[in-house]
Amino acid sequence: MCSVYIVGVGPGDLGLITVKALSIIKEADVVVYDRLIPPDLLGLTRPDAELVFAGKELGHHVMEQAEINELLLKRAREGKMVARLHGGDPFLFGRGFEECLELLRNGIKCTVIPGITSAIAAPERFLVPLVVRGIASSVAIVTGTEDPNKGKRFVNFKELAGKVDTIVVLMGRHRIKEIAEELVAGGLSPATPVAAISKAFMDGEKIVFTTLRDVNGDELESPVVFVIGNVVQAAASLSNVGKQSIPNRKDG
Amino acid sequence: MCSVYIVGVGPGDLGLITVKALSIIKEADVVVYDRLIPPDLLGLTRPDAELVFAGKELGHHVMEQAEINELLLKRAREGKMVARLHGGDPFLFGRGFEECLELLRNGIKCTVIPGITSAIAAPERFLVPLVVRGIASSVAIVTGTEDPNKGKRFVNFKELAGKVDTIVVLMGRHRIKEIAEELVAGGLSPATPVAAISKAFMDGEKIVFTTLRDVNGDELESPVVFVIGNVVQAAASLSNVGKQSIPNRKDG
Repeated sequence: MCSVYIVGVGPGDLGLITVKALSIIKEADVVVYDRLIPPDLLGLTRPDAELVFAGKELGHHVMEQAEINELLLKRAREGKMVARLHGGDPFLFGRGFEECLELLRNGIKCTVIPGITSAIAAPERFLVPLVVRGIASSVAIVTGTEDPNKGKRFVNFKELAGKVDTIVVLMGRHRIKEIAEELVAGGLSPATPVAAISKAFMDGEKIVFTTLRDVNGDELESPVVFVIGNVVQAAASLSNVGKQSIPNRKDG
Repeated sequence: MCSVYIVGVGPGDLGLITVKALSIIKEADVVVYDRLIPPDLLGLTRPDAELVFAGKELGHHVMEQAEINELLLKRAREGKMVARLHGGDPFLFGRGFEECLELLRNGIKCTVIPGITSAIAAPERFLVPLVVRGIASSVAIVTGTEDPNKGKRFVNFKELAGKVDTIVVLMGRHRIKEIAEELVAGGLSPATPVAAISKAFMDGEKIVFTTLRDVNGDELESPVVFVIGNVVQAAASLSNVGKQSIPNRKDG
């Protein structure tokens, strides 16, 4: 049976890919990938595998989504085993679900392999939890980027303020000041602690502890995960202790 | 240097453990584990590894948290390589952060290995996304269980209603009716679609499509992940197509 695997490859560290994802990537006839995948991952594919880059380059999509869908369908119909890779988790702010729908509608089997999302793993990398007993029991994960397409729906940060204990903003580097202002307008204190985690699991990874008042995405390299809420303070107070424990990328 | 690894082992499928987690488990001198870990995982430990069960049995904790912390410290100080396993992700509603703090405070290095959380993976197993372009751009992950300890903080579901597009409730089987009522009191329609995913990645896994009006946790086997919001409808409308594509546990 024709089959496409929609595969999450995690936040960028080859060790944080799942066993199942790795075995599929090693076996696939066709591997379709984006920019944010662990370095060296493609070196593990079959020597005769067809590798297709479908991501963004200099801000432009190399392939439109319709073209990607078309390719997945075509190769699956040729009887090829196709692995479509997504950074992080394929359904969390990726296009994995849309791709899966398109395949199913066309009678092609689609199997989703979950991946480690940077929304959780990037903070953890610096020992920042999203929930902690007695401090935070709810977390919202939201996109900070507005959808350029029709049918758009933006996050109402003003309304979200105070309704969950922790807010994680993905893809929000350019809008974080505006988002912070909306959260303050919604009732959060300007002193609310914020952790900005830049390039987690990559060379140059770092964490910056700041506040809603002072947060500034311009100083940080992409990708950035912002964590907003009192859990950050719990972590920040331990940063001197915690820092020692953050391994470098090689042994981590 | 003494070292403890706080390791997420994912939602229960051996294939959904990360490469790094697996290599640590294979190498560890001491493995401390709970009930919700993939079957067969312990068979991969070293023959001479010390295996310690620290979970719940018949509703009672076999080991109190203080005892677990004590054991982790003791074995690390003996120079042992210690792996403390957590189902799902160690920082998302587990005690991983608290354990890590206790270790750091005592001068022991602590390395966190993120795991696949069932909050995301269980819905994905049945092709239910948490966010979809044009339908949902924010998701809250919350615990449905009240903290029996002091310093408790509960989720205010009435206030949360409508503030995020999708709500995922973990550990909420017993309270889901009450939670649904609070969400309706907060303004959500009683017809809001709900997906209840029971025992994802385990024998007997299933999904039930229902609504806030009709949701009932008593009929479901633990663990259950509830997904509340319009993304469920997007998935449910495809359930007939989607069902075919859900592999059985053996080949999935």
